[in-house]
Parts: sequence; structure tokens; C-alpha cells
Amino acid sequence: MESQIYWIGMAGIVAFTVSAVLTVLPKGTNLFSASVFGIITAIGGGTVRDVILDVPVFWAVDLNYIWVSLGASLAVFISQNFFTRKHIYSSILYLDGFGVALFAIEAADKVWHLAFGRPLAPIILGIVTAIGGGLIRDVLAGRQTLLMGRELYAIPVLLGCTLYVALLALLPAFRIYGAVVCCLCIFGLRAAAIHWDLSVPEWLAMKPKSG
Amino acid sequence: MESQIYWIGMAGIVAFTVSAVLTVLPKGTNLFSASVFGIITAIGGGTVRDVILDVPVFWAVDLNYIWVSLGASLAVFISQNFFTRKHIYSSILYLDGFGVALFAIEAADKVWHLAFGRPLAPIILGIVTAIGGGLIRDVLAGRQTLLMGRELYAIPVLLGCTLYVALLALLPAFRIYGAVVCCLCIFGLRAAAIHWDLSVPEWLAMKPKSG
Amino acid sequence: MESQIYWIGMAGIVAFTVSAVLTVLPKGTNLFSASVFGIITAIGGGTVRDVILDVPVFWAVDLNYIWVSLGASLAVFISQNFFTRKHIYSSILYLDGFGVALFAIEAADKVWHLAFGRPLAPIILGIVTAIGGGLIRDVLAGRQTLLMGRELYAIPVLLGCTLYVALLALLPAFRIYGAVVCCLCIFGLRAAAIHWDLSVPEWLAMKPKSG
Repeated sequence: MESQIYWIGMAGIVAFTVSAVLTVLPKGTNLFSASVFGIITAIGGGTVRDVILDVPVFWAVDLNYIWVSLGASLAVFISQNFFTRKHIYSSILYLDGFGVALFAIEAADKVWHLAFGRPLAPIILGIVTAIGGGLIRDVLAGRQTLLMGRELYAIPVLLGCTLYVALLALLPAFRIYGAVVCCLCIFGLRAAAIHWDLSVPEWLAMKPKSG
Repeated sequence: MESQIYWIGMAGIVAFTVSAVLTVLPKGTNLFSASVFGIITAIGGGTVRDVILDVPVFWAVDLNYIWVSLGASLAVFISQNFFTRKHIYSSILYLDGFGVALFAIEAADKVWHLAFGRPLAPIILGIVTAIGGGLIRDVLAGRQTLLMGRELYAIPVLLGCTLYVALLALLPAFRIYGAVVCCLCIFGLRAAAIHWDLSVPEWLAMKPKSG
Repeated sequence: MESQIYWIGMAGIVAFTVSAVLTVLPKGTNLFSASVFGIITAIGGGTVRDVILDVPVFWAVDLNYIWVSLGASLAVFISQNFFTRKHIYSSILYLDGFGVALFAIEAADKVWHLAFGRPLAPIILGIVTAIGGGLIRDVLAGRQTLLMGRELYAIPVLLGCTLYVALLALLPAFRIYGAVVCCLCIFGLRAAAIHWDLSVPEWLAMKPKSG
């Protein structure tokens, strides 16, 4: 079980890296900057989480996260044509959605079991882990961050982490099942958002009154 | 005394949150992003301070800071028309000024009594606590940060924290009175800047020579 | 030896600060903001490194880094005409290149001897130390970061740190000589880039396919 989660996590790192490199590509970049963007996107959110938790940063404990991200950056550099093919790029988006779901729930679980700021901190740091790297990437690349757009990206993470924390509080015996279910919830919502191009619903939108 | 400072601090959190949400509103946002901006602005500076100090982050120790900020974000979402009324918005600006003053002096006091990097670090981390959250908000929202503008916002904090550190060094017995006086100094300067629309004085400006 | 490195380091801080202030100057700034930019550029990268390493931040242990950076900011404010003179500005660029080389190798050495995430973390944190402060400055100033440009700035740091880590792994007895050689490698590449206006080589560039 543990080792399967580990390998799924590595697939998530690859997806984060590849989608990050493809995101900054249209502005023109180089192998070094692309690798920096790939690695920052893949590990940035988890690094902020670990610094706030005051635990050793996860990638220094297991350098495979960096090696895999570096390898994925190189792979995009070498075979850019492959990764920009329509159905490959689309698979990457779904894999990115799965990575987001997995890292968010893993993080919420880690923070909960450290008994750190229950019940809010596990949710907050789950979101930070899932979207923090992408925010840092966008800021460094001079792009609009997802907080200013209407893409349905972070709200599924919020819902999934909240559900998971509620499950841990009320039904702690179902930790494993709960984690799987919440992961699938986040991924399901994210996949639906990719497939049907869903955006944040209108009734959650805030607009300044005109005039 | 302690409990009064606590409640004034919570009022400051509300002011930080409300002014943050109203700041990002003109670009159009949604309830989720607005809450993220509200919370980041309210707790961002203090989080950076605690991470640099290597002490537990204040909001994980007392989650009320997050709950209050979350509640204030929701309140703005529900009753946007109320908060954008001229005299209400103006009150929020003054309350924000008071929050800035309070958090800066509280932070300088905390850092000083941890004997961390005296005498400069208490001043620097007082400024970081007061303006750090707003800087992160502006960067994530793609707005010009206050460091590039001419608004008189951070300089009163610098003056107040410097004065407070001088008092702690020279007259440690007057800690409470000193804190009140320095708080009022910062708030007074900030209120004057809001009321008379003051900007950074010309003789402090740096301009590139033309030609 | 130690004290010479210390004084060269202080010269690097001056160069970082002066080049930072001159960088933000064309947009118009003031003494306070310029000093904030100067200090952040000088100490930002090392602060991120120390927070990730979970060791006390270097400038709180030795406040001279802040005093020197503050003094350099004031010096630019007072004698702006002096620092924008062509050959003075050019000297500052070379001194900045030397600071980058020194701080990167110092950081890689520090991380290696803490046995933190060998062999990748010393290289990564060497790069973070050298360019992190500049990235934070550019983000706060609303400028394009060097990751999006083609200036040859970070790649020499990557090469030098990688070489140094290889030397530490294979020939640990030659630590001092290795450090000097790798420092000079970085500085040499950076000086060549300044002198001949070199940019990232074409074969490392990544461009989206048109159409």
C-alpha cells in the first residue's frame, strides 16, 4: 500500500513538472529555467507546508522527488513535440489533477496526525501543498495566478480536504477508505472541470457594483 | 489588559481581511479566492515572522485568527454593498491603520523579548509583520505592491518600531506605556496619511536623472 | 583566511545592495523602499536557505549584514550620481558577479557540511542563495524575473556548485582549493557574460512550435 502511494506520488510529481514546463513554454524559456519552474511547481507547495510545520522538508529527506522532477523537465526539453500532442497534453492535465488530489489528502493526513492546528490547519495546508507550487511558478513567470482566474482548481481541493478532516474527526477508523474516497472526490471534480471546461459557479463570484 | 489587546487584535484581523477583500474586488473574484486573499493578508506577515524566528506559527496555536478572518471574508461576500459604502469603507481604512500599528508593536515586542537579533531584527520583523501579508496579497493578485507606490504606509511603522526599540533599550521599565505611545504614533501618522491623502515626502524620493 | 572571506562577503553585500537599488531606480522609488529592496536582495536568498535548512538565519546571528546593506542603500541615495557613472556601475556589476560566486559556494559548502540532502540540496540551495534575493526583489518590484530572461546569470552558478559538490564528494581533502577554483569559475563565466553581453546559448532555448 505504502509503496503504491509512493509510486503514484512520483507520477504526480511528473505530471506537476510536465504541466509546469508546458505552461511557461509559450513565453519562451530555456532548459535551466524550465527545470527550475518544473521543480518549484512540483515541490514548492510541500516545502512551504513543511517550513510552516517546522519539520524537515520532504525533498531533502528523499531526493527522488527532485531527481524525478529534473528527469521530467529534461524529457519535455528533449521531446517537446511528444508532450504538446493533443491527447498526451490532455492526459497530463488529468494526471496533474490526480497529483493535486493525492498531495492534498496526503498533506491533510500528515498535518492531522501531527496534531497541528486541528481542524483548520490540515485543510489550509492541504490546499497550500496542492496549489502553492503553481502559485510560486505563476508569480515568478509573471503570469496571472489561478486565484485571479475562474478555473475550477482549488475549490475541489478545499471540499476534499474538508470532507477528509471531517471523516478523521468523526470516523477515525476509516482513515484509509476515507483517504481514497476524498482523493477520488477531488480528482472527480477536477476531471469534470477539465472535461466540460467548468469554471467557478456564478453564485460564488464577486463583482464590484458598476457606476 | 492582555484580553483587551487580544480583542483589539481580532478587530485588526477583521480590518485587514475586509480591506484585502475590497482591494481585490475590482478585478472580479469569487468567494474562495476572496477568502484566500483575506486570510493571507491577515496572517501572512506574522507567518513569515514566526518562520524566521523559528517559533510555532501564531495561527496554528490559536485558530481564532483564521476563524475570524474567514468570517470577515464571508461577511464581505454576503453584504458587499454595506462594506463599500463610503463611510464604512473609510472606517475600515482607519481600523486597518490601527491593526498595522498594533501588530507592528506586538511583533517588535515579541522579537525583542526573544532576544532575537537586537536591535535591528525587532524593527525589521515589526515591519514584516505589518506589511508582509499585504505584499503577498498584491503579488498574488498581480497588483503593484506598496513598495512601488508613494502611499505613506510603511514609513510610520518603521518610525514607531524604531522608537519602541529605543525605549525598550533605554527605559525598559516603561514597556507598557511605551507600547501604547508607539502604537498611537503609528496610528496617528497613518490616520493623518489617510485623512489628508499624504504621500512619501519629496525629499525621500529617488528619481533617475533624465538624459 | 576566515576574516578575508568575511570581508569579501561584506563587499558582496554592498554590490548586491547597490545593484538592487540601481535596478529599481528607473521606476522611481524612495529612500525607504530602496533600502527595503536593497536589504531583501542582499539577504533574501540566504534567508530562504536558512529557513529550509532549519538553522538560525545568518543575519540575525550577525547583524553586520543588515547594517552594511542599510549603509550601502543610504550611500546610493546620497550619491546617486556617483553610482550611475558608467565605469562605477560597471564595477558594481562585476562585484555583484563576485558576490554571487562567493555566496553560492559558501552556501553549497555550508549545506554539504550539514549533510543536508547530499548531493542535490547543496547545489539547489547554492542557487537559491545566489539568485533568491534577486527573484524576490523583481517580484515585489513588478519586474520580469531573470528566470524569464536570457541573461547568463544562474547557469554559471549551477555549473560552479555542481563542480564544487563533485569535488567535495571525490576529493574532500582539496576543499579550500576547490572552493577557490569553483568561485573563480562562476565569476569568470559571469564576468565574460557581462563583458561580451553573452546570453543563454541557443541550443538550451525552448520555443513553442508555431502554428
